[in-house]
Amino acid sequence: MLKNDLILRAARGEKVERTPVWLMRQAGRILPEYRKVREKAKDFVAFVKNPELAAEVTIQPVDILGVDAAILFSDILVIPEAMGLPYKMIEAKGPYFAKTVRTEKEVERLRVAVGDDLSYVTDAIKLVKKELNGRVPLIGFSGAPWTIFAYMIEGSGSKTFSQAKKMLYTNPALSHSLLQKITDSTINYLKAQVAAGADLIQIFDSWAGVLSPEQYNEFSLKYISQICDALKGNKGNKENIKNNNPISPILHIPSVPIIVFAKDAFFARKEMSKLKCDVISLDWTMDIAESRSLIGSGKTLQGNADPCLLYSDKSIIKRETEKMLRAFGSKRHIANLGHGLYPDIEKDKVKFFIDTIKEFRF
Amino acid sequence: MLKNDLILRAARGEKVERTPVWLMRQAGRILPEYRKVREKAKDFVAFVKNPELAAEVTIQPVDILGVDAAILFSDILVIPEAMGLPYKMIEAKGPYFAKTVRTEKEVERLRVAVGDDLSYVTDAIKLVKKELNGRVPLIGFSGAPWTIFAYMIEGSGSKTFSQAKKMLYTNPALSHSLLQKITDSTINYLKAQVAAGADLIQIFDSWAGVLSPEQYNEFSLKYISQICDALKGNKGNKENIKNNNPISPILHIPSVPIIVFAKDAFFARKEMSKLKCDVISLDWTMDIAESRSLIGSGKTLQGNADPCLLYSDKSIIKRETEKMLRAFGSKRHIANLGHGLYPDIEKDKVKFFIDTIKEFRF
Repeated sequence: MLKNDLILRAARGEKVERTPVWLMRQAGRILPEYRKVREKAKDFVAFVKNPELAAEVTIQPVDILGVDAAILFSDILVIPEAMGLPYKMIEAKGPYFAKTVRTEKEVERLRVAVGDDLSYVTDAIKLVKKELNGRVPLIGFSGAPWTIFAYMIEGSGSKTFSQAKKMLYTNPALSHSLLQKITDSTINYLKAQVAAGADLIQIFDSWAGVLSPEQYNEFSLKYISQICDALKGNKGNKENIKNNNPISPILHIPSVPIIVFAKDAFFARKEMSKLKCDVISLDWTMDIAESRSLIGSGKTLQGNADPCLLYSDKSIIKRETEKMLRAFGSKRHIANLGHGLYPDIEKDKVKFFIDTIKEFRF
Repeated sequence: MLKNDLILRAARGEKVERTPVWLMRQAGRILPEYRKVREKAKDFVAFVKNPELAAEVTIQPVDILGVDAAILFSDILVIPEAMGLPYKMIEAKGPYFAKTVRTEKEVERLRVAVGDDLSYVTDAIKLVKKELNGRVPLIGFSGAPWTIFAYMIEGSGSKTFSQAKKMLYTNPALSHSLLQKITDSTINYLKAQVAAGADLIQIFDSWAGVLSPEQYNEFSLKYISQICDALKGNKGNKENIKNNNPISPILHIPSVPIIVFAKDAFFARKEMSKLKCDVISLDWTMDIAESRSLIGSGKTLQGNADPCLLYSDKSIIKRETEKMLRAFGSKRHIANLGHGLYPDIEKDKVKFFIDTIKEFRF
């Protein structure tokens, strides 16, 4: 039994006493407590793979910041690694893949990950759930297949992801075949997260914004939709069976709320309202009233403060945060930023932002 | 007298026999001829500062690709340099400023650039005009003040420009004072370009997309608007006089068409229709019909093919290009990409894209 289920109720469109809040990258470098634990691991990948350390930093923001949910400390790139494509995280630069995927052979060689490949994640979830002891829900997550694909092809971050997009233009069939493998892996992974105790799921499409609306439908939303269907207990894997992809047998998992965050995909808001998800997360470039009108009343909205707002004086943080809360209204809103916290934002300001939201009443 | 004035007529909304075309970064690394000239300069900044070399590569795409306009080979960061903040271009990394601007003193120390500070640019323009001999018009350009500000504060490229945005949040007054200095410099610079012979002007707001709609109005559009007013012969510099900023006396320059390209600023399309500019440039994430309806019929639209389309087979380039041309229609359109050409795009494909546009008839 959860003592604080505000986020779950808000996600489902039920009544809440106040707007719930959590923050992307709340378990991260803004907390000195995080940096201390981080030092215990030899590198970022080792840190992610250590269930005890991952569990410890997952819980920190619940104790220190008072957020209404924990989000599992992990990385979206555990999926390529489980598929056979390991990555490194290079300090101040970002992810790096020594090998990339460009040819049919390289796609064939990748395996569909199953939940067991990522037992360090499910072990961390079990530890977190035990330690949280029902205080707040735990959010599990994955990258959207397009975003994972983009890293696997490009081999690193990029402003344009031109190599990944080149593959979409020059070999759409191979692109679909890789996207399907990533999708199947992700379904297995997210099912395992829910089976281990994740109370809701967020899908991060960090590089949604580099695609045209048409390409986004074909190469991203299609696969996010398969994931939503599969997690909501529908088949959603007809394509997998057709393609002889090995997918895990459907586990008897509860149907948990799903949040989709497609950064910069302003053009997809209307289409996204058709997904079998519960929450759509917005960034600060998207007008709140316009987004509500495009998405309709059937989804909860999440977001959307600019992380840079938290560099401001407290009076400005308060004014802008309350303006945001009023613009979203009292129903179907989960307060958050429109992107992850930046590492140099002061912890005190983060706490003030959260407290402002928790103290606000309509 | 111009032999081909299609782009000028399209910009003004006059009748054209076919859709005109030019490409962002047409004078660049996709041309082996460019790379050969580039080798003659010791580094990028020296290349930009050499009028003969700059003029040579400016003309290359007119001869080699058959575009309907030349665009001056230069860089938007010549403005910070003329204001007293030099930059370097680091291979495969991008611009880098050894010193950045963060304090009041550092803003005060910067001077307002006048046209003469950038005589290497106006010299290049005169050489190009002579060599072109009226074949096609010459496009001059500058960065938008917000984008120049972002580089001067951040000191380099960035995914988030969080330091530049931090300044907007923590010291809006200082931000406005720096933006005004950049704007005054830019007005002087663009007037000098027109006086030297530029037939139209493009303002590049490359980092428009990191701001919220509200911030974009306050910290970017306001200054782009001043530039448009000043170039269109209006005063537009009341603020300058009020702030005792030294601005050049109004030159008797012709009123040339102005193109504004605010990358990723989907949210500003309606507001931008109020600018005293002639053309608004779109990227490929922006739906063409929706953009036309937001912007209205009073502006010409430019764009908006995804540069990655040019990685495709010719049959796909042809199909997608013709689809784009039909979506924009026969009036008030200048064909272009939605971003600059990427260096690894084949010259042959670029030429094919241009020829497809030039051969198309409604």
